[in-house]
Amino acid sequence: MRATLLYGNGDVRVEAVPDPVLHEPTDALVEVTHSCVCGSDLWPYKSFPAIEAPIRMGHEFIGVVRESGAQVTGLRPGDRVIAPFVYSDNTCPHCARGVHTSCVNGGNWGARRPDGSVVDGGQGQYVRVPQADGTLVPVPADGATVEALAPALLALSDVMGTGHHAALGARVVPGAVAAVVGDGAVGLCGVLAARRLGAQRVILLGSSEPRWAVARKFGATDRVTVRGAQAAAEAVRELTAGLGADAVLECVGTREAFDTALAVARPGASVGYVGVPQDLKDGYAPLPIRPMFVRNVGLNGGIAPVRAYLPELLADVLDGTLDPSPVFDLELPLERAADAYRAMNDRTAIKVLLKP
Amino acid sequence: MRATLLYGNGDVRVEAVPDPVLHEPTDALVEVTHSCVCGSDLWPYKSFPAIEAPIRMGHEFIGVVRESGAQVTGLRPGDRVIAPFVYSDNTCPHCARGVHTSCVNGGNWGARRPDGSVVDGGQGQYVRVPQADGTLVPVPADGATVEALAPALLALSDVMGTGHHAALGARVVPGAVAAVVGDGAVGLCGVLAARRLGAQRVILLGSSEPRWAVARKFGATDRVTVRGAQAAAEAVRELTAGLGADAVLECVGTREAFDTALAVARPGASVGYVGVPQDLKDGYAPLPIRPMFVRNVGLNGGIAPVRAYLPELLADVLDGTLDPSPVFDLELPLERAADAYRAMNDRTAIKVLLKP
Repeated sequence: MRATLLYGNGDVRVEAVPDPVLHEPTDALVEVTHSCVCGSDLWPYKSFPAIEAPIRMGHEFIGVVRESGAQVTGLRPGDRVIAPFVYSDNTCPHCARGVHTSCVNGGNWGARRPDGSVVDGGQGQYVRVPQADGTLVPVPADGATVEALAPALLALSDVMGTGHHAALGARVVPGAVAAVVGDGAVGLCGVLAARRLGAQRVILLGSSEPRWAVARKFGATDRVTVRGAQAAAEAVRELTAGLGADAVLECVGTREAFDTALAVARPGASVGYVGVPQDLKDGYAPLPIRPMFVRNVGLNGGIAPVRAYLPELLADVLDGTLDPSPVFDLELPLERAADAYRAMNDRTAIKVLLKP
Repeated sequence: MRATLLYGNGDVRVEAVPDPVLHEPTDALVEVTHSCVCGSDLWPYKSFPAIEAPIRMGHEFIGVVRESGAQVTGLRPGDRVIAPFVYSDNTCPHCARGVHTSCVNGGNWGARRPDGSVVDGGQGQYVRVPQADGTLVPVPADGATVEALAPALLALSDVMGTGHHAALGARVVPGAVAAVVGDGAVGLCGVLAARRLGAQRVILLGSSEPRWAVARKFGATDRVTVRGAQAAAEAVRELTAGLGADAVLECVGTREAFDTALAVARPGASVGYVGVPQDLKDGYAPLPIRPMFVRNVGLNGGIAPVRAYLPELLADVLDGTLDPSPVFDLELPLERAADAYRAMNDRTAIKVLLKP
């Protein structure tokens, strides 16, 4: 089959790789119908040294079950499914608490299993799915409906669930004034998630015009385009009678974004963060703990357990009350994955859908 | 009147200072009946360079209202009152959200008001209380009852409310396994607060025998005495079927304590922190953001808005269901404040009550 591989900085290729087969009795084989490129795919794309062994890319896909292992009971060939961006058994103590990203039997697409076998990446034609019963969420709709809703459903595999995680971490409640740091696909989904949870106002911190247009569609009410934590904090206070934001969604991951998110929060607020933290030293980054302490601003979030949110968000997509599909502003065939990465890296596209 | 002053490192003196008088129409004058020394008083005690102008000390006291200003409506002379460790108007937007420590008209005991007048510290005979209606909480009990409950009531001015804030920040829920980092008076109150909120088990991280005895009295069920984040995390996992603690209370403020608290938390848990952060650089400290992100461990807390919790905790003390008084293991006359500081600094006392 054909699949996307990263060979090093800026070097993405679509090549022939071995067809996946069932390997464990809990596996399923999925034919990918829609995949996409994630903002987090750009971190290795921008900072990965050239290596001998390329890595499989992609962790967002929807598709059709083609085969399932002997122990898979909840899926059958022909089922339309959404895959969250990590696989998990949905039964371990961490999954039971909704933290599927810490599943004791879970792992990442494109990585190796404990037995040494390679799990496929999502940007390819087929994927062997470990822990299929726990991982895949069937879409109870016919093929035509799924095809029509495909971009919205695909967004549930990562960015919409991640925006929702940010909104939960920020403790958005009905009537809240939310602020969203970052206007990438996750930040835009954060706007949508904050409104869905009842935020009365959503202030987007970002300066791109096309992204602001999507944010408006998603319910953003105000905009701050200045850069730097202190200038942004002043601008947000000006919009909020001097108070700051009730709930802040951090959707970038850089130090500046963290500082900005913490600075625009009002006392007692929480920053929900989902941007992959950058600029770390041995896993540590300097955080402004004194103002956090004095102002009682909390920090909650992390890698989003989107599997936990899939049933709820899927129901809303199917009943027409949730539509994150506008985050996709470019569609390319899988064979042009390199162009997709380039477009997102150059910020000429927000998020690119790939069709195998 | 007599009051406690800090002249520099380890140099505490009780001296004559001007008798306070009503200054603003929102002031009240309180005769202090019981005060005490706080763990946070030890930070300036240990690190304050010798200076010309000594500073007034103390921010925890209970007493009797002796005079009140023209705009004070909720208090009258003779009222027995508890003062939280900062003053606040209880009406501004931040107070209305329960973040009294960010009150727009609030401030610290022993510091200056915007008009330049000095507010008394709590370790003295009298205190002029700004924003008296918002700050002071009357105790609806007769003099004999208040005298009998005085240590428990005094603990509500800071340490018990601070332990409660840590437990809320840690999101202790009924049935939870809580871990408490630090066995100072706040950590011990954190044990009590976690049990009060329904924790099924409370693991104390600390090695002092007399403090462990108090912790047992407060409901601690398990103990970890090893030092260092990784060793502590292993010990806590051993006690929790490999999972880690559901809720963690950080009650110290050092980097090691933060690292330990974050390491012993299970995925998806929250660390409620109330220890005054130490070892900062321009207000920043390095935090292990990568494991926090990967494991979805949150950080919530800060300086405790104990005024928000006073009515609820006071009701429990008065009905006999809450008794934090065992944190006081030494009582001295105000004149011996220097001995009180020394005893706490040498860890020969947990917390010292001072009687003016």
